[in-house]
Amino acid sequence: RVNIERVKQKFNKLASIGGTANGGVHRLALSDEDREARNLFVEWLKERELEVNIDDLGNIYGIKKGTDPSLPPLVLGSHLDTVPYGGRFDGTLGVLTGLEIIENLIDENQEHTQSVIVVNFTNEEGARFPKPMISSGVLANKYTTKDMHMLRDVTGKTIKDELDRIGYSGKRENRITKADKFFELHIEQGPALIEQGASAGIVEGIQGLSWHQVTFEGDADHAGPSPMAFRKDAGVGAVKAMYRLHEWVSSAGDETMITFGKIKTEPDVVNVIPGKAVFSVDIRHPDPNILQRRVEEMKQIVIETSLETRLTNCIEDLSYMPPVVFSSDLTEQLEEICLKESIPAVRMYSGAGHDAMYMNRIAETVMVFVPSLNGKSHNEAEESRWEDIESCMNLTAELVTLSLHS
Amino acid sequence: RVNIERVKQKFNKLASIGGTANGGVHRLALSDEDREARNLFVEWLKERELEVNIDDLGNIYGIKKGTDPSLPPLVLGSHLDTVPYGGRFDGTLGVLTGLEIIENLIDENQEHTQSVIVVNFTNEEGARFPKPMISSGVLANKYTTKDMHMLRDVTGKTIKDELDRIGYSGKRENRITKADKFFELHIEQGPALIEQGASAGIVEGIQGLSWHQVTFEGDADHAGPSPMAFRKDAGVGAVKAMYRLHEWVSSAGDETMITFGKIKTEPDVVNVIPGKAVFSVDIRHPDPNILQRRVEEMKQIVIETSLETRLTNCIEDLSYMPPVVFSSDLTEQLEEICLKESIPAVRMYSGAGHDAMYMNRIAETVMVFVPSLNGKSHNEAEESRWEDIESCMNLTAELVTLSLHS
Ligand SMILES: NC(=O)NCCC(=O)O
Ligand SMILES: NC(=O)NCCC(=O)O
Repeated sequence: RVNIERVKQKFNKLASIGGTANGGVHRLALSDEDREARNLFVEWLKERELEVNIDDLGNIYGIKKGTDPSLPPLVLGSHLDTVPYGGRFDGTLGVLTGLEIIENLIDENQEHTQSVIVVNFTNEEGARFPKPMISSGVLANKYTTKDMHMLRDVTGKTIKDELDRIGYSGKRENRITKADKFFELHIEQGPALIEQGASAGIVEGIQGLSWHQVTFEGDADHAGPSPMAFRKDAGVGAVKAMYRLHEWVSSAGDETMITFGKIKTEPDVVNVIPGKAVFSVDIRHPDPNILQRRVEEMKQIVIETSLETRLTNCIEDLSYMPPVVFSSDLTEQLEEICLKESIPAVRMYSGAGHDAMYMNRIAETVMVFVPSLNGKSHNEAEESRWEDIESCMNLTAELVTLSLHS
Repeated sequence: RVNIERVKQKFNKLASIGGTANGGVHRLALSDEDREARNLFVEWLKERELEVNIDDLGNIYGIKKGTDPSLPPLVLGSHLDTVPYGGRFDGTLGVLTGLEIIENLIDENQEHTQSVIVVNFTNEEGARFPKPMISSGVLANKYTTKDMHMLRDVTGKTIKDELDRIGYSGKRENRITKADKFFELHIEQGPALIEQGASAGIVEGIQGLSWHQVTFEGDADHAGPSPMAFRKDAGVGAVKAMYRLHEWVSSAGDETMITFGKIKTEPDVVNVIPGKAVFSVDIRHPDPNILQRRVEEMKQIVIETSLETRLTNCIEDLSYMPPVVFSSDLTEQLEEICLKESIPAVRMYSGAGHDAMYMNRIAETVMVFVPSLNGKSHNEAEESRWEDIESCMNLTAELVTLSLHS
């Protein structure tokens, strides 16, 4: 059983690092706030005399050595970075679950052959450096080290620069490249669990996602003397494309999701017709074939709209992650524990990507979801019930007990 | 007759101040570039021994004193500021016309009772400080001195700060508050003259304009796990509103113009549903009653869309300028000169606002338009023919000769 009071204390300390006036957290990857959170995490690892390793991607590992460290380890963890003005739970809860379970093993003098590791992954959110989950992606050989090190934020700073600056550039040999199992507890970030009255989500997999940047170019011109029909208004073209894409997804009526998180016009002046408009497209679907088809259809609609509005278009592919299916053995074990412990749980797919997506390639993987109170996430109002958190942490702890080689 | 070579030399010098790689000009109001252009203008005024006055709004006056300076002066001028990445002609040409006509009077030892003044107005564009033509607006009592001095750019700097910084905070008593006549030569900034094969536009008035800022607020949320129907996507709401507004204006099929120059979402992250979206609305019409009706209809569409998309809305009125009708005596005189001199000219309304709009309240006013080659303006590709410029400058010079009390 986890010590939920001990978890809450740590949780509150982390919530204050980058804490916002509205009760959220603003702690972008590799910022000063991220450094402060990392330092605190390392301090906690050292207090319990865990071995602390940092790899060249900035991932932090707290290792409780087993009696046979040559065996592949059991790994738990998540991330301490947040989106701009995000919530207190996203990521943090998974890191604290790993640490709490290891503290429990220490408190109970548990013997085990394989090592148990809690990990904090770098730049999970992809909010500052626009490739989410890139550090687990490198561990799983989806991305190269250079892909990650040279990734830049909007001001042009690279991940490598920022790792050096905050003192979290470690050694390549510290990477874990193979694990026995990987467990990640996370908030659901959507309304499914709360709507079904469940206390825990057993995550069977993650839907695929595809990110794009669309640029329309026309001619900047004066808002006054340019007849409407004469214009090449890149802003209106982008508006038409987004309108149609949204109508198309809504009328498809299936599980497809589409989001335009970033919309911008240039030169960005009230009385100048935009010569350029840029927007992002995030499309998701749990079926890889349908997702691929949706991406093609999206591009078709963008191209047609640009032709019709006499604008040039450029569609850049930013990121693609196919859907993932987790270990059915592990989801079955989770279900059995829930039955035994009377935890109201449902099986579900994750709408959001997580490091578990890539860890699934190098370890038998599963996730546990905590209900999100108002279904909201990536929002300062993110909220979960501590009873649910405790149930989900205990569920994860029991899975560790069942899984651990001793 | 103007000395067009002398004008061209000055024009090229001004085009190099803030000159861009693509042949445009980037010279925002009260920037370092604006200071440099102002300094050069003052140098030219002093070379011809004109009296140089700066008022507390930063307006620069070059005065050729008449034999009876108590008479209301004849004023010519325009502005030296530009929009971001704007063109070489917009504003500059009107300032140079005023100066060239005065230089001509000097060269020809012309005697006159009233003073003749060339003026450079501060922040005509409203691109940096978002109230266009505010300095002539203060002269005409549309705005207060405080309205202008406290107006801020996006970084929070006020006009007063920036006037002080670049050394152009002059004396209030230097303002002109009443003039006999005001003439402004300007490029058309639209395609009407070039399409009709004219060399000059005789401007009968200016259409009215109304500027607004619309803000939609919903809930920021995660792009992955939030079902489409569950979302309060402020970006999609804004897209729907702009789409409908554009369709509505297009289908109205009258002279109404609508422009969304600024479109932005927050928090501006690929995988976060926008919790906030802001866009600007610029609506224009030459008839004051129709313009008023259009503004009401626009607000109605915005409000309906926000209700339908379950978002809150805020519509802020930024600027309103009713249509203006210039002196019919002066337009008739211009027409007669064009007939006599065989200058192919057409009567027209201005689509863009100009300082002449406010000067019309304190002086008998008219404008002359030079054809814009590709109909483009507020664009680096802005272009006009020097033959047309020369015709329009001579036309203005003749009107000055006819108007000047001697
Ligand atoms: N959990 C999370 O925010 N992951 C980032 C990748 C995504 O957008 O799904
Ligand atoms: N000429 C010009 O750009 N004036 C600014 C006001 C307007 O947008 O019409």
